[in-house]
Amino acid sequence: MFITFEGPDGSGKSTQIRRLKEYLEQQGCQVLVTNEPGDTAIGAQIRDLLLNPIYKGITPETEALLYAADRAQHVRQVVKPALAEGKVVICDRYIDSTIAYQYFGRQLSGEFMGTITKYAIDGLMPEATVILELSPEAAEKRYTQRAQAKQADYDVPDRLEQERAEFKERVNQGFKYMAENYSHRIITIDASGTIDQVWDAILAGLKERGVLC
Amino acid sequence: MFITFEGPDGSGKSTQIRRLKEYLEQQGCQVLVTNEPGDTAIGAQIRDLLLNPIYKGITPETEALLYAADRAQHVRQVVKPALAEGKVVICDRYIDSTIAYQYFGRQLSGEFMGTITKYAIDGLMPEATVILELSPEAAEKRYTQRAQAKQADYDVPDRLEQERAEFKERVNQGFKYMAENYSHRIITIDASGTIDQVWDAILAGLKERGVLC
Repeated sequence: MFITFEGPDGSGKSTQIRRLKEYLEQQGCQVLVTNEPGDTAIGAQIRDLLLNPIYKGITPETEALLYAADRAQHVRQVVKPALAEGKVVICDRYIDSTIAYQYFGRQLSGEFMGTITKYAIDGLMPEATVILELSPEAAEKRYTQRAQAKQADYDVPDRLEQERAEFKERVNQGFKYMAENYSHRIITIDASGTIDQVWDAILAGLKERGVLC
Repeated sequence: MFITFEGPDGSGKSTQIRRLKEYLEQQGCQVLVTNEPGDTAIGAQIRDLLLNPIYKGITPETEALLYAADRAQHVRQVVKPALAEGKVVICDRYIDSTIAYQYFGRQLSGEFMGTITKYAIDGLMPEATVILELSPEAAEKRYTQRAQAKQADYDVPDRLEQERAEFKERVNQGFKYMAENYSHRIITIDASGTIDQVWDAILAGLKERGVLC
């Protein structure tokens, strides 16, 4: 079983993924938690290229191709082998991020995005996707609070965090579009509540769709 | 004017590119010599991922997407701006390498390679391409001699150099296919002769096609 989580930084993805992992392990499952971009040796280097603010001149096409390269490696080297061993794989960001950020956000061509995504995922679609929905303002507030709490290293927002409001609005529209058109797979959860409230909603949503029992 | 050079390592590309640059400068042209992969800050990192033998598990799809990412950046950041300034641009490896190595060599799908190449080059095709033809055996012999002469750093062949003979044979077939089917653009030169012989043949070929006068 392959479950993906989506949502802006600050929406609580990591916390909720940890909860789901614990829940599944209590049910006797073996669980692998992974993330895109970056969860292979090659991916870690690609992640730095994508998110390090020193690479300011990166073109939208380069960005999309690098994300696809990371995913092609990640799917074949990490996700598929774990699924073949019978593990449940939970991935922090996957195909819906690509559609929201690169297709809606960067407004790249559908032919281009469709083809590179098709060959990157190699037929692997998630059984369920949880989108944690949070307004750009609320996400930014949480992100800033976390940055201040951690100090030092985190005070430079990464390259995508620095994007202007208009881009973020298009990204949000992208996630909404996906949620509306792929409602059999995607569960959208209001992430503005407490950790427990959000977790309860995730659990109910996954059970309702028969993904968890 | 945009001219590309192709051929295996050891075929003398760098030497002949230098000759062509000097020739064009004597004619009063401003010339930019560049190469793929790697001639941008992002590209240098991508080049390391592609050629460093430590990344052994890289999948063919990842490799192709990384080459395309490098090219998307290089075309937009380096080649097109130089052409817009009226410079002649000479590039060491371009689209024919992609077709020979990824499509013929790795046997990746035409839909995939066609689409990623289309969006990477952004409409930019070379006016002329020089393929320096050398048998895999002769290329390897020259490469080894050079490696021994330079000692140290060069004694580990890069990841593509380590590929087996069967792959190299398919790559050679790829270059032959391109040369036969795009003979208006591609000039194939026997690279087994002396530096002067090869240069004379390049010059004659480019003049014959009206690229140089």
